[in-house]
Amino acid sequence: MLPSKLLSSLQAVFPTDRLYIDPVDCYTYAYDNSRKIYPPDAVIFPLTSAEIQTAILLCNQHNIPLIPRGRGTGTAGGSLPELGGIALSLERMLNIITVDPANRVIVAEPGVTNQSIQDAAKPHGFFWPPDPSSAMYCSLGGNIATSAGGPHAVKYGTTRDHVLGLKAVTGAGDIIKTGCYTTKGVVGYDLTRLLIGSEGTLAVITEATLKLTSLPDAIAGITAHYRDIASCAAAIVKIMSLSQIPSALEFMDAGSLALIRGRFPNMLPAHSRAMLMIEVDGSSYDIPNLITTVMDACHTDGLLQVENTRDTAHLWKTRKALSPLLRDIAPKKINEDIVVPINSLPELLDGLTQLSDRYQLANVNFGHAGNGNIHVNLLINPDDPGEVSRAEECLNEIFDLTIKLKGTLSGEHGIGSEKRAYINKEIDPVTLNLMKQIKRLFDPNNILNPGKLFP
Amino acid sequence: MLPSKLLSSLQAVFPTDRLYIDPVDCYTYAYDNSRKIYPPDAVIFPLTSAEIQTAILLCNQHNIPLIPRGRGTGTAGGSLPELGGIALSLERMLNIITVDPANRVIVAEPGVTNQSIQDAAKPHGFFWPPDPSSAMYCSLGGNIATSAGGPHAVKYGTTRDHVLGLKAVTGAGDIIKTGCYTTKGVVGYDLTRLLIGSEGTLAVITEATLKLTSLPDAIAGITAHYRDIASCAAAIVKIMSLSQIPSALEFMDAGSLALIRGRFPNMLPAHSRAMLMIEVDGSSYDIPNLITTVMDACHTDGLLQVENTRDTAHLWKTRKALSPLLRDIAPKKINEDIVVPINSLPELLDGLTQLSDRYQLANVNFGHAGNGNIHVNLLINPDDPGEVSRAEECLNEIFDLTIKLKGTLSGEHGIGSEKRAYINKEIDPVTLNLMKQIKRLFDPNNILNPGKLFP
Ligand SMILES: Cc1cc2nc3c(=O)[nH]c(=O)nc-3n(C[C@H](O)[C@H](O)[C@H](O)COP(=O)(O)OP(=O)(O)OC[C@H]3O[C@@H](n4cnc5c(N)ncnc54)[C@H](O)[C@@H]3O)c2cc1C
Ligand SMILES: Cc1cc2nc3c(=O)[nH]c(=O)nc-3n(C[C@H](O)[C@H](O)[C@H](O)COP(=O)(O)OP(=O)(O)OC[C@H]3O[C@@H](n4cnc5c(N)ncnc54)[C@H](O)[C@@H]3O)c2cc1C
Repeated sequence: MLPSKLLSSLQAVFPTDRLYIDPVDCYTYAYDNSRKIYPPDAVIFPLTSAEIQTAILLCNQHNIPLIPRGRGTGTAGGSLPELGGIALSLERMLNIITVDPANRVIVAEPGVTNQSIQDAAKPHGFFWPPDPSSAMYCSLGGNIATSAGGPHAVKYGTTRDHVLGLKAVTGAGDIIKTGCYTTKGVVGYDLTRLLIGSEGTLAVITEATLKLTSLPDAIAGITAHYRDIASCAAAIVKIMSLSQIPSALEFMDAGSLALIRGRFPNMLPAHSRAMLMIEVDGSSYDIPNLITTVMDACHTDGLLQVENTRDTAHLWKTRKALSPLLRDIAPKKINEDIVVPINSLPELLDGLTQLSDRYQLANVNFGHAGNGNIHVNLLINPDDPGEVSRAEECLNEIFDLTIKLKGTLSGEHGIGSEKRAYINKEIDPVTLNLMKQIKRLFDPNNILNPGKLFP
Repeated sequence: MLPSKLLSSLQAVFPTDRLYIDPVDCYTYAYDNSRKIYPPDAVIFPLTSAEIQTAILLCNQHNIPLIPRGRGTGTAGGSLPELGGIALSLERMLNIITVDPANRVIVAEPGVTNQSIQDAAKPHGFFWPPDPSSAMYCSLGGNIATSAGGPHAVKYGTTRDHVLGLKAVTGAGDIIKTGCYTTKGVVGYDLTRLLIGSEGTLAVITEATLKLTSLPDAIAGITAHYRDIASCAAAIVKIMSLSQIPSALEFMDAGSLALIRGRFPNMLPAHSRAMLMIEVDGSSYDIPNLITTVMDACHTDGLLQVENTRDTAHLWKTRKALSPLLRDIAPKKINEDIVVPINSLPELLDGLTQLSDRYQLANVNFGHAGNGNIHVNLLINPDDPGEVSRAEECLNEIFDLTIKLKGTLSGEHGIGSEKRAYINKEIDPVTLNLMKQIKRLFDPNNILNPGKLFP
């Protein structure tokens, strides 16, 4: 329960339609894609930086957690009020402030969906490269707070490569402005990228200046099917050693293909046990050669078939269908997001097979192979305690393998609450302590998204 | 003079050939490309992070400044021991630790020159995109500490876009490891980019994991000459609105061309008063079309001639010759590094002409036009007090114009000591204060490069 003085102070700033306190209303802000549930004590819907500043200062006074929330599509529990407190929903800060095609810039508020940014950029021949599969619904603020990426990150990078500047309100209530409006700039410390990926623990992002990229002239798709995972992994390494990087290189293992077959029986070749979905883009002069080169690189011992598909939209539909299909069959799947250097993918994928055999767990792996970013899904029955504890042990070994292969625990989902227990595997105590001090500097009373990101 | 206890402690760690205390030896570490002179009281040449840590801890104990130094090519005075103290030269940390072409990674120590990185990458078909004109001599550590860029930044970005992870020793003496070895990663705060561009004020960079980029298949050059600066500026805007960005777009004004004519009388068309040097790169299938498109975009009212030059090496030689030529005629030129959004370049260049007329100052402008990054050179006689004070007023107005046009005070050189007085024009007090607090966090006793970057 919130202190009544805090509540009345909030009521003085936020009209009733922008301050929810009814538990039922609040409940709809209790969950995200981590499937944990923590209802907030209140939800506020600020429209301006000044309102956010006021809310932050009030929460500091009363020592009440304030949890920034975009659209709650995060997979790591980042937006959940685990310790209670107030959900700060950015979903009504919806202005696209500037569309400046001559300078390849869009300035927008954090609640704007990723898709709306794309829609604003497209008529001018541009896109904003971060492309999480949740693009239709997730927010710009959420994308920035997690440094979201998607299939095209292999060629275009992730959010941190496409933001020029930010406005934000720190946990201490300071309104700051970072970065610049130009593609070059080295004045002062790079606070822009310090905030990108900080998962709402340092500051609330209130405005972003985005760097746009030209839409490619032409796009083509390639699919390749393999007899086994090893030959597919070898092909990934070959493709990524080509001089021109494909604009997407997605991988699905036998388990993923089985799921798709369950829904679309005739879509996939019967013997395929691993598949690559590849996109190349560039000028139309370039595409034919690119297709040939990539198709050549697909050839490894276990290749069953490789095809040039004109219909790239259909390609992406298949890939996007996978996530909900997984959810259907195993509502409590453990969904991981590890990354290893490309050259270690064969060893990782082999190791994953061995681990799931050893722990007798069903395991579905797919992901952004071009970045070495594999979504590992352990399909467990949450009511089977034996399975749950085997899964925990297995996960622990998966992370150890990832680190041994010079990888990282998360490529796009972040730490949030889900991966706190493991962050020590990757970050040494001295560096982690420095990060904690930075947190303390931005947010001395630990008001902003407390408990997240740190062990 | 250094406290004798500090000196003897240093002597216990550094053999005499790695610890200079003779003022003559020290004097060679007194200057950089800012042409200010501040001799250090000692110079140390560490070989390991542990030695750097020891030196930092000793300097903390004795409250003596420690100034990281790469190769002293910085233009902003960043490596100068303005307040005395010890120069920490990284020039002997010269190991290239890993060349890993399969993962497109090089790991190297900070003293390695930019050119050595390029030489290590090239046999594998790669380059490291940061390309300051000083590449033959400047160090990786210096590149990272300034987020250096060069002509190719227009297409490939600057240093901050091409570093995956760092090792460093903070001003507090903590050895930290940031980032990862993979192209994706969102675990913890982005300390990598916080250190990039921090000009040696937060930590000494001791190792860097660099992301490599494929060398383009083909390169072509285009030169265009204009009757006046306005028509050239209009062409820049047109070129940068093409969907494919050129790999370089360099601009020289009438003053720059006059300098080149002085040395190479027949090199340039007689009536040219502004020139563009353009490079396009890509696959060989793509180049012919790219050349045509860019040459078309060069056409504005004042175009005198546009040519496709095969010899891009020659193109760059001309451009690189400019800096020393400027130095010859005006040893005390004021050399600025402002950036404005592309679309504001015409207004900026026009404004620069007006300002140099108003203040009766010779003025030579050239630079990385594709990024809106213009090197403004005020050619002054330092012995003429009237001229010096007019230059100061003019500079002040140039910075105001830059900020008014949504630009930034420095695209690549940084603040160092040279631009401290102006940083308040760009960064508001609240944000600047937060940066100062970050400085204090990394370096509580203000040992590391004290006085730099902040007003
Ligand atoms: C079907 C599906 C597919 C997905 N695919 C991808 C994918 O391909 N790639 C990928 O990277 N992710 C993916 N995700 C995860 C998720 O969509 C992204 O992380 C997205 O960026 C989250 O945006 P959001 O607006 O929902 O943020 P939320 O979930 O609301 O919040 C995420 C984090 O950001 C913080 N935050 C949100 N807004 C702000 C703000 N304005 N200021 C400060 N902090 C803020 C929150 O506190 C929280 O820590 C997927 C999720 C789903 C459900
Ligand atoms: C002819 C010429 C042309 C140039 N052209 C360009 C250009 O095109 N683009 C461009 O960006 N710059 C250019 N410069 C500027 C300069 O070369 C770059 O800034 C370069 O990155 C500096 O490298 P350095 O090793 O000489 O660093 P230094 O000058 O020694 O140091 C620069 C800054 O980095 C810090 N530093 C150095 N090493 C470390 C370390 N290991 N850890 C922490 N801090 C460190 C220093 O304290 C200082 O603040 C040019 C300079 C010259 C003389």
